[in-house]
Amino acid sequence: MAKDKKAFVKEITPQSEDFSRWYLDVIQKADLMDYSPVRGCIVFKPDSYEIWETCQRELDKEFKRTGHRNAYFPLFIPESFFQKEKEHVEGFNPELPWVTEAAGEKLEERLAVRPTSETMIGHMYAQWIQSYRDLPLLLNQWANVVRWEKRTLPFLRTSEFLWQEGHTAHATEEEARQETLQMLDIYTSFVEDFLAVPVIRGQKTPSEKFAGAVDTYSIEAIMKDGKALQAGTSHYLGQNFAKGFEIQYLDKDNQLKYVYTTSWGISTRLLGALIMVHGDDRGLSLPPKVAPTQVMIIPIGPQKAREAVVEAANGLFQTLQNAGIRVRMDARDDVSPGWKFNEYEMRGIPVRLEIGPRDLENRQVVLVRRDNGEKLFVPMDELTEALPKLLDDIQQSMFEAAKQFRAEHSYSATSLEELTTYINEKRGFVLAGWCGDDQCERAIKDACGATSRNIPFDPPAKPEQCVTCGKSAAHAVWYAKSY
Amino acid sequence: MAKDKKAFVKEITPQSEDFSRWYLDVIQKADLMDYSPVRGCIVFKPDSYEIWETCQRELDKEFKRTGHRNAYFPLFIPESFFQKEKEHVEGFNPELPWVTEAAGEKLEERLAVRPTSETMIGHMYAQWIQSYRDLPLLLNQWANVVRWEKRTLPFLRTSEFLWQEGHTAHATEEEARQETLQMLDIYTSFVEDFLAVPVIRGQKTPSEKFAGAVDTYSIEAIMKDGKALQAGTSHYLGQNFAKGFEIQYLDKDNQLKYVYTTSWGISTRLLGALIMVHGDDRGLSLPPKVAPTQVMIIPIGPQKAREAVVEAANGLFQTLQNAGIRVRMDARDDVSPGWKFNEYEMRGIPVRLEIGPRDLENRQVVLVRRDNGEKLFVPMDELTEALPKLLDDIQQSMFEAAKQFRAEHSYSATSLEELTTYINEKRGFVLAGWCGDDQCERAIKDACGATSRNIPFDPPAKPEQCVTCGKSAAHAVWYAKSY
Repeated sequence: MAKDKKAFVKEITPQSEDFSRWYLDVIQKADLMDYSPVRGCIVFKPDSYEIWETCQRELDKEFKRTGHRNAYFPLFIPESFFQKEKEHVEGFNPELPWVTEAAGEKLEERLAVRPTSETMIGHMYAQWIQSYRDLPLLLNQWANVVRWEKRTLPFLRTSEFLWQEGHTAHATEEEARQETLQMLDIYTSFVEDFLAVPVIRGQKTPSEKFAGAVDTYSIEAIMKDGKALQAGTSHYLGQNFAKGFEIQYLDKDNQLKYVYTTSWGISTRLLGALIMVHGDDRGLSLPPKVAPTQVMIIPIGPQKAREAVVEAANGLFQTLQNAGIRVRMDARDDVSPGWKFNEYEMRGIPVRLEIGPRDLENRQVVLVRRDNGEKLFVPMDELTEALPKLLDDIQQSMFEAAKQFRAEHSYSATSLEELTTYINEKRGFVLAGWCGDDQCERAIKDACGATSRNIPFDPPAKPEQCVTCGKSAAHAVWYAKSY
Repeated sequence: MAKDKKAFVKEITPQSEDFSRWYLDVIQKADLMDYSPVRGCIVFKPDSYEIWETCQRELDKEFKRTGHRNAYFPLFIPESFFQKEKEHVEGFNPELPWVTEAAGEKLEERLAVRPTSETMIGHMYAQWIQSYRDLPLLLNQWANVVRWEKRTLPFLRTSEFLWQEGHTAHATEEEARQETLQMLDIYTSFVEDFLAVPVIRGQKTPSEKFAGAVDTYSIEAIMKDGKALQAGTSHYLGQNFAKGFEIQYLDKDNQLKYVYTTSWGISTRLLGALIMVHGDDRGLSLPPKVAPTQVMIIPIGPQKAREAVVEAANGLFQTLQNAGIRVRMDARDDVSPGWKFNEYEMRGIPVRLEIGPRDLENRQVVLVRRDNGEKLFVPMDELTEALPKLLDDIQQSMFEAAKQFRAEHSYSATSLEELTTYINEKRGFVLAGWCGDDQCERAIKDACGATSRNIPFDPPAKPEQCVTCGKSAAHAVWYAKSY
């Protein structure tokens, strides 16, 4: 799949010129995806899929550590199931694709391709849960889901995407609420520690919550164009689905009671966040913890010294691979080192390792950081110690840089006019007071296109008045334009 | 999900009485699956899904070791794609479910839910492959697929199932053929070493090959009712899909050439094989390498000694878990040890570890093997050494027992009458000569319902005449009824 030469021809549009164009350029040039012949569906090429596999592995470990197990439920959901939770059907009906025929015959009941599985899982839970002994029931599913979106954008909003959806049932509201927040914490740690993407944790306003939830919590990240991306959500569903699907259990007191359920998910849209938080005009920049390749070895120098250099490079490759570093080498001699430098910077590989004849003499190599361009001369013998430390340092620096960017693009507003100015001219997140009225929230969207991201758990300030109506503020809310 | 008491009520039908009933009883009682409200689609409950995860992890390692990478292609395939390979459309058209509407509108072109992805991947490969430098292209996909089968059977033949499909493209026929056989080897090692299921490797006859393949190779296993189960296939596709989708590359000699492609897959039907090869009238029996729980600790003895016993059992649990053994403990005291013994035998857990007051005094435990019922007294201090060895021994014994069963149910026939008698009365695999004519193969199916399983690479004998027409035999073929 090395379309190297072709990729080199086309430059990446600078972020400042056209951020959307920059994004689309980068994801294709870095060979992360391709468009498919099906509307809004993309192909995940090996590098992006490998990042997703790393996300899966890490999150799955955390899910299992906290007592969840994986299961797999059917892709198709009978139409009648969507009718059982009123808000749910209203929320998802406009986006459903329908299977109406199979094996040459018209189906008696249309089948939706799942947009999420609360209904199917609710139906099954009703069969499985009978006694308090069956609770809590803690399952997760890794799956593909489909939402027929009008406007699509690779990774961020595609007709089909990959995700995980956790679904749990509990005896008490308290336990279900704890679960909801526990999973939000797991998402927070994962996104911040692995993807180096800082997030704001908080509760969605009623107008932005999941269709069928009592309360939705989210983590929100800021992209380099100042727009927000919802990076994960966790829903306290109360007894809404339990009542819709008759999920009841016989309690210790011999009473039949409805369970309390939760659901929570993250998806391949995280890849979009990764790209838009760390990327720059030279292309992608991947945090070491999720980079499919962490170190790229490039032998340099004149042809006559080549054999010795490549031999030494091969030795380093083996040493680093044995040390558990995800390393690759590009020893092709029909492509110039300069071309390779650009190419692997563009692909976001965290560290470039150069080795030439003089380095060989000095028993050292040159390491170049993708994140800040820093060059380091490191003795060969110290590489297996120095590299893991360097990778950690890069991971940390990238997280700090992203926090710095967010700090520089966070504002607070005390009037609608001020808020609108920040949104339109400064771009970023704006904190403002909210009285709790849907109308006031909507007025902001109408004025500047920003929506409430969430009501943060730890607001940096406590605004006194609703930014729209001036009444007493019940909450501090982050507003931003969003993906 | 502990429906323990309920499960205990219903007995398992003996294999000898009704093997199909036995199978359906076991998979439900062992809590492996449940039926869903969608025709032919099942729910994979945590134990069966965990077995599948283990299969995935192991195979994925082998795929990557041999240079493959994972990618993900769209679930939906435009109708027109199926027309591009004539045999392929004929083979799959009768089983396709169609999405005809989405988001409230009728689609311009119907979309099939993928039954397999040769067409979609062929279309993408045509964009990605341009030069000999782009070859070989070695990708794999883990995905769900759908085939709207008329008669379904949990795990073995479900409308939706989970699988992996490898798709590779090569510059030469030789390389593609090598790849095809390499993957068959990987499947063979995996199924024999991990699932302890012995298989026969061979080539499918033309009438049984994959729709669109030049040659199909398979591994075939024998179930305890004597029926065959195709456990994995690897296809040499020649240039059929390359020509259908215009997958061409510019070779070193500056000539535009078609690539040679392969595809290969295994699926969740392997779970069916696992159950039907090792299970018995007491229920499931899982090989240690894929058992979600390898050892179940059950504290026993009178109530007054219980505290000390449970404390010691807890200590063992920690020790074994730290030693990397997949161990669980059932210390409930509202359920009798006898009930637990039956329950975990039924769930196929390879080793039961009993510990009671007298064992505590003697610093020993009792280990009971699920596969052959053997009881062993092992000093506590030796457990972390003894258990891994015991698990290995069980794995090996189960494989040997399965091979023994196969040997006892393999026959060879020199006449159609003899073959028919073996199939109908002895049940099992029958080796017979075949002239190469489709008609002769069909006559066998008509006579007794057996189909050709494959032409084995290493036939135990070389029949001289075609079992049907008496002409000179071109091949030795294994025949059996099959799932």
